[in-house]
Amino acid sequence: MLLKVTLLLISRIKLHLYMLNIPDSKYERIVIVGGGFAGFTLAKKLQNKPIQLILIDKNNYHQFQPLFYQVAMAGLEPSSISFPLRKAFQNCDNIVIRVAELQEVKTEEKRILTDQGEIYYDKLVLAMGTKTNFYGNKEIEEKAFSLKTVAESLYLRNSILEDFEKALMEKNYELRQKYIDVVIVGGGATGVELAGALAEMKQYILPKEYKEIDSKEVDIHLVQAGDALLKGMSKEAGETALKYLQKLGVNVILNKRVNSYDGNNVVVNDGTTIPCTKVIWAAGVHCRKVLGLDEDSYVRGNRLAVNDKLQLLKHPSIYALGDQAFLSDEEYEHGHPQVAQVAIQQAKYLAKEWIKKKDKGFKYKDLGSMATIGRNKAVVDLPKMKFKGFFAWILWLFVHIQSLIGFKNKIFVLINWMWNYITYDQSLRLIIKPFKRSTSKPKT
Amino acid sequence: MLLKVTLLLISRIKLHLYMLNIPDSKYERIVIVGGGFAGFTLAKKLQNKPIQLILIDKNNYHQFQPLFYQVAMAGLEPSSISFPLRKAFQNCDNIVIRVAELQEVKTEEKRILTDQGEIYYDKLVLAMGTKTNFYGNKEIEEKAFSLKTVAESLYLRNSILEDFEKALMEKNYELRQKYIDVVIVGGGATGVELAGALAEMKQYILPKEYKEIDSKEVDIHLVQAGDALLKGMSKEAGETALKYLQKLGVNVILNKRVNSYDGNNVVVNDGTTIPCTKVIWAAGVHCRKVLGLDEDSYVRGNRLAVNDKLQLLKHPSIYALGDQAFLSDEEYEHGHPQVAQVAIQQAKYLAKEWIKKKDKGFKYKDLGSMATIGRNKAVVDLPKMKFKGFFAWILWLFVHIQSLIGFKNKIFVLINWMWNYITYDQSLRLIIKPFKRSTSKPKT
Repeated sequence: MLLKVTLLLISRIKLHLYMLNIPDSKYERIVIVGGGFAGFTLAKKLQNKPIQLILIDKNNYHQFQPLFYQVAMAGLEPSSISFPLRKAFQNCDNIVIRVAELQEVKTEEKRILTDQGEIYYDKLVLAMGTKTNFYGNKEIEEKAFSLKTVAESLYLRNSILEDFEKALMEKNYELRQKYIDVVIVGGGATGVELAGALAEMKQYILPKEYKEIDSKEVDIHLVQAGDALLKGMSKEAGETALKYLQKLGVNVILNKRVNSYDGNNVVVNDGTTIPCTKVIWAAGVHCRKVLGLDEDSYVRGNRLAVNDKLQLLKHPSIYALGDQAFLSDEEYEHGHPQVAQVAIQQAKYLAKEWIKKKDKGFKYKDLGSMATIGRNKAVVDLPKMKFKGFFAWILWLFVHIQSLIGFKNKIFVLINWMWNYITYDQSLRLIIKPFKRSTSKPKT
Repeated sequence: MLLKVTLLLISRIKLHLYMLNIPDSKYERIVIVGGGFAGFTLAKKLQNKPIQLILIDKNNYHQFQPLFYQVAMAGLEPSSISFPLRKAFQNCDNIVIRVAELQEVKTEEKRILTDQGEIYYDKLVLAMGTKTNFYGNKEIEEKAFSLKTVAESLYLRNSILEDFEKALMEKNYELRQKYIDVVIVGGGATGVELAGALAEMKQYILPKEYKEIDSKEVDIHLVQAGDALLKGMSKEAGETALKYLQKLGVNVILNKRVNSYDGNNVVVNDGTTIPCTKVIWAAGVHCRKVLGLDEDSYVRGNRLAVNDKLQLLKHPSIYALGDQAFLSDEEYEHGHPQVAQVAIQQAKYLAKEWIKKKDKGFKYKDLGSMATIGRNKAVVDLPKMKFKGFFAWILWLFVHIQSLIGFKNKIFVLINWMWNYITYDQSLRLIIKPFKRSTSKPKT
């Protein structure tokens, strides 16, 4: 009992050291920026180790990005694919969480500035992921939808549903078509999965719930710059995805780029114009630049070049993980793919390296990749085999449920998926508009 | 097959009649305003009857108000207690849904104006429920929180969690207290249930997730104007609720009113000032007035006086249901309580009366009332007995799950409650801030 109280007191004092921001001489302090796959996994591996750990993220939760498109399509709730960081680390005395945004790194002083104040570090881990890349096109950035946060996914969901409601009230034929047609830009996993889900909504939901709209008039366009879909996967996977989507009625436009979108008309580079109120931009990502790092730290897509210990080349006490890291080795000359598996493996590697000090370099083990296009339809590339169809789809479901954080989330997603499968229905079509009012700031 | 196609064609034509807003000579057209307990139940009872039915609501979903407080306390997701109207009426060919807001009633022309256009009616049913009554205090209206929509409930949830995060970063003691203290105004079911849930969050969650905040310093005040809690229930229920809340550490202040709140300080009518950033106003409701109805249609709280057929006294083709209706009979001289049971019974009565034409007046059958204060703690008043404690709590859970719309919602709420009960934890503490950007309007 006395021991417990003493331990509690010590942990409280330690915590106050964090608050006052005085480095603790006894324990090394690691600051992780980003609670995504990389940052979250690393923190989990370091919990209750003799390390001071500060995890900062803009949000108070971990987000499971691969399923954002299902949130957008009203198939899953944000809470089923998000997990509160504080809850995840309830039982750790060595981890402090701060909802904060990184503003600058002071490499000389080993200090970062955030919107919530400054934090000293012994080691700094940058695991901030990527953001949508609009390739400098401000107009598209302003008018198009993207899917890089749960908030954006919910916003897209609301917009799709609101536009259906508007279409019902619209007597002008042209304008009605604008409300119901959708253009997706980018034929990677997000674009393909979204197109498939939209096509199924058109097929199964619209005829039942929007009887006054002729669902055959809903056009879904998928514009891909390259000559195949799913560029990160095998040729076969891309071809199968194309076949699946065409069967579902998606108009796949290959070898074309979207030049402009003003909120009303998409202009493709062959001069075609597609009128629509919703363009979903899934055509690329890049990393945020970090103030305080030299320009020559970055390679293509603003990724940070690291050595095989995942350290920045010029700053060995700063690490980059996941999408933000660029490690070129024999097998991956152009860096690893920006996927969850790389982030998770790098995080696990780093924790092991820090704890066991084996002095080995990171080596990525490709476990395969997969994408789903709709009911019973998926493509899977494993290192030694490729397959598609129902079993690929089952494997996709299994892998995604297994990767979710939190047992309850797994159950809820599983029930939702079973439910949707049996009823041919995603049942979360709620337009919950955020409550708005003037916010008040307290004064002292 | 041919029959099916013909029927489908006829239903399509009928639907187009709705769209073009030409009254159909063959079927009577009923317009229901509001998809709450009253409007939703009435529409359900009239589905697939030889009646043209138009259901309008501001939202595209039915909301289960009794559990808003659990959404606010991160115990349930909005989607678990909301149900999309279009989904609920997927299989009805006689019901058209419009997401629209009533603006005016033209009683002479039997026509309503909405923000989405005008609609003719043969019978009009007003079932618009209530909104928060701030008794004319604009400042409180602007600064306080209330719980009359799921959007407001989510907003409160986000604010509570954000304020805990702010408190962590706040070095000034006074200001920190402001962020963590909460004042609830109103000792009815909402106020009591919210206070109980907050007290449990303080007890079970804060010590685990906000270790740097001393949870004993979190003060929850419940200010009630009357001399007892739960005025709508028995004296015993109010006393038990008081005892339960005090045991949970809630500071219940009876016989006091809140005079003002400027976003920083609550001033009670005895002069006491409580500094806090969150005041939750649950001190009363009133109805919206409907443009086009005479002033003398309204009684206390803007309720519409109706006869025992639920018709407005001066307009027999307009009906009022639920919270919005005021029916005075021998037993309920001052009108029925504004609760779900009355709304549901009135809706059922009206549907029966319209279909079977029995020419009987509405009679309310009180089935009892209940409120929960926390784990294993509830009070139940049945017509013939009163009880409290664990069995009351079980009954409360059962009745609420049973009343939810949608089988999946029942399952999800049940799992959530079982989960929370076993783990002492509500696990939905996600601050999902709405995505914002400049919206674009399409042009023709």
